[in-house]
Amino acid sequence: MTLLDRTLEAITPVTNELDDQIQAHLDDLTKPQGSLGKLESIAAAFCAARNTPTPAIPKKRIVCFGGDHGVVVEGVSAFPPEVTPQMVMNMLAGGAAINVLARHAGSDLLVVDMGVNDPFDGAPETLRRCKVRLGTDNIAVGPAMSGDEARMALESGITIANEAAVDGITLLGTGDMGIGNTTPSTALYCALLGCDPADITGRGTGVDSAGVQRKITTIGQALHVNRDRLSTPLSTLAALGGFEIAGIAGLIIGGAAKRIPIVVDGFISTAAATVAIAMCPAVKDYLFFSHMSQEQGHAQILAELKVTPILDLGLRLGEGTGGALAMTTIDAAIKVYNEMATFSGAGVSNR
Amino acid sequence: MTLLDRTLEAITPVTNELDDQIQAHLDDLTKPQGSLGKLESIAAAFCAARNTPTPAIPKKRIVCFGGDHGVVVEGVSAFPPEVTPQMVMNMLAGGAAINVLARHAGSDLLVVDMGVNDPFDGAPETLRRCKVRLGTDNIAVGPAMSGDEARMALESGITIANEAAVDGITLLGTGDMGIGNTTPSTALYCALLGCDPADITGRGTGVDSAGVQRKITTIGQALHVNRDRLSTPLSTLAALGGFEIAGIAGLIIGGAAKRIPIVVDGFISTAAATVAIAMCPAVKDYLFFSHMSQEQGHAQILAELKVTPILDLGLRLGEGTGGALAMTTIDAAIKVYNEMATFSGAGVSNR
Repeated sequence: MTLLDRTLEAITPVTNELDDQIQAHLDDLTKPQGSLGKLESIAAAFCAARNTPTPAIPKKRIVCFGGDHGVVVEGVSAFPPEVTPQMVMNMLAGGAAINVLARHAGSDLLVVDMGVNDPFDGAPETLRRCKVRLGTDNIAVGPAMSGDEARMALESGITIANEAAVDGITLLGTGDMGIGNTTPSTALYCALLGCDPADITGRGTGVDSAGVQRKITTIGQALHVNRDRLSTPLSTLAALGGFEIAGIAGLIIGGAAKRIPIVVDGFISTAAATVAIAMCPAVKDYLFFSHMSQEQGHAQILAELKVTPILDLGLRLGEGTGGALAMTTIDAAIKVYNEMATFSGAGVSNR
Repeated sequence: MTLLDRTLEAITPVTNELDDQIQAHLDDLTKPQGSLGKLESIAAAFCAARNTPTPAIPKKRIVCFGGDHGVVVEGVSAFPPEVTPQMVMNMLAGGAAINVLARHAGSDLLVVDMGVNDPFDGAPETLRRCKVRLGTDNIAVGPAMSGDEARMALESGITIANEAAVDGITLLGTGDMGIGNTTPSTALYCALLGCDPADITGRGTGVDSAGVQRKITTIGQALHVNRDRLSTPLSTLAALGGFEIAGIAGLIIGGAAKRIPIVVDGFISTAAATVAIAMCPAVKDYLFFSHMSQEQGHAQILAELKVTPILDLGLRLGEGTGGALAMTTIDAAIKVYNEMATFSGAGVSNR
């Protein structure tokens, strides 16, 4: 049995056996019932995922996976592909937005090369090297990767989740870096959720309207040429995905198997989450969807997945930035749950 | 000249002389232009309010003003009025949601008695005593307070803002505690913005549908019996307001005069902000609207004010809780502005 299969088998839906106890505690805190809105539902979901009525403030790690995409030759990105390795180096040097926001959230940050088009000779040792190869093939003319490569990339994510469990991490965040990766993400949504490329294809890092049209055409080609490869979630990921998307999906699967809740970043990470949910629907019980991306289509996709994002800050950067910001909200929710006085304890009259 | 008049005169609109410099810096950070959405606009607005292109992480203080309301005899609240002093004591003991969330935000918390129906004999010295009297009169039958009382309460808020400036505070947050205070807040919106009570009257701490109908009737009565007192923002505040609402309005006015941006909490604080803006429209340049309250009507009111809230977390608690959470987002925005690498500095190709 492969690591992937073993891990998928280990995932169990959260039980509702603690729900009454958790809700009773929330309702005994000195505030009108439900008046802290999403903070209350976040605290309850975190408790359920961790299977405890007494949660500790989470120990956090954001994992940002990098990968390059053969499909960039179709002119689907506003930035040149060399920006992927440049931004990975920027992250290793501490200068990217995710460095700032992971620090803000009190989270570790792990940067992973899943398939960037650069050997990273002389890169800092903090780079986690899980390179499958130097970028995917062009999905507009064939599959992005082989099935074995997809499994390998997923298993790298699982291994990183398993290591996080050993390190005592209790909240994972996903992140991505990959020029061109809104195109494979959009293709995955179309294949897995039945969306129309014309509805959910957006500007990515900032292509113009002609660029959006090129993306729509390219995604249509990708769905057509790969149409016989879309029979399972794994084969669909291999046909249309990216190495970093597969790594994120693996992190999600691995985290869920270890009962570590995972904060899903934006458009790219949600595509990976969609793959993971397709492989094992119970994964969803362990996910926090961090934010509504400004990227066209994300709202529709979150609605299709029947999930509500925590934040809506107009972000469209990726890297894990929305996840980092949502982590601070999750911390706030757990602190409220743990630290507020109760009606009886504080001598406050209930209604 | 009164402290109120002097302070209003000292408020100047923010200038746009630094806008190009601030925007150029944001656009030189290693991310697609505008991809950090509200974080970018928040950083720019904070810089403009502080009149600097090099902002420091704000030193923060949340001020939670308490007051009681004669109108509670009309049955407009789900909780009994003794909860106001009980919750003030809970805040002084550290057990309320705002204690937890102010700590989470790295903010001071100052609790102020503006007019709670309790002498607070033996309360901790940390209680700031600015009591006008033991609660307002019932607005359904006459004015809440006299014009002199309204001015006194406003000036207490101004004084607290002036002290914050002396203490080096660079970001203020507003908060409220007052059983019944959605009713005077709603009445103020109707008088100042021309809203219909039937559109914007909500459940407050949790009244049922009959209670909402009682609130609508009560607000209609308050607007009718006080109709000759609604000629100026000050007289309107005196007729329909609350002592804590006046205190918040004073804090906002005083903060704006000192160029200290103010994070406005939810439904009650936005009513105070509406009063302050009516007194001096330039105040608005210094305000961050922290969140969209779950309280019926807040969305419409924020739209009337032409402002966009930072968060939408389904909160309806007050106390400053939404403001505290938004402060963490503002911190994140300033950190991104200050700490990210630039394209040239990091050797990353721009588009």
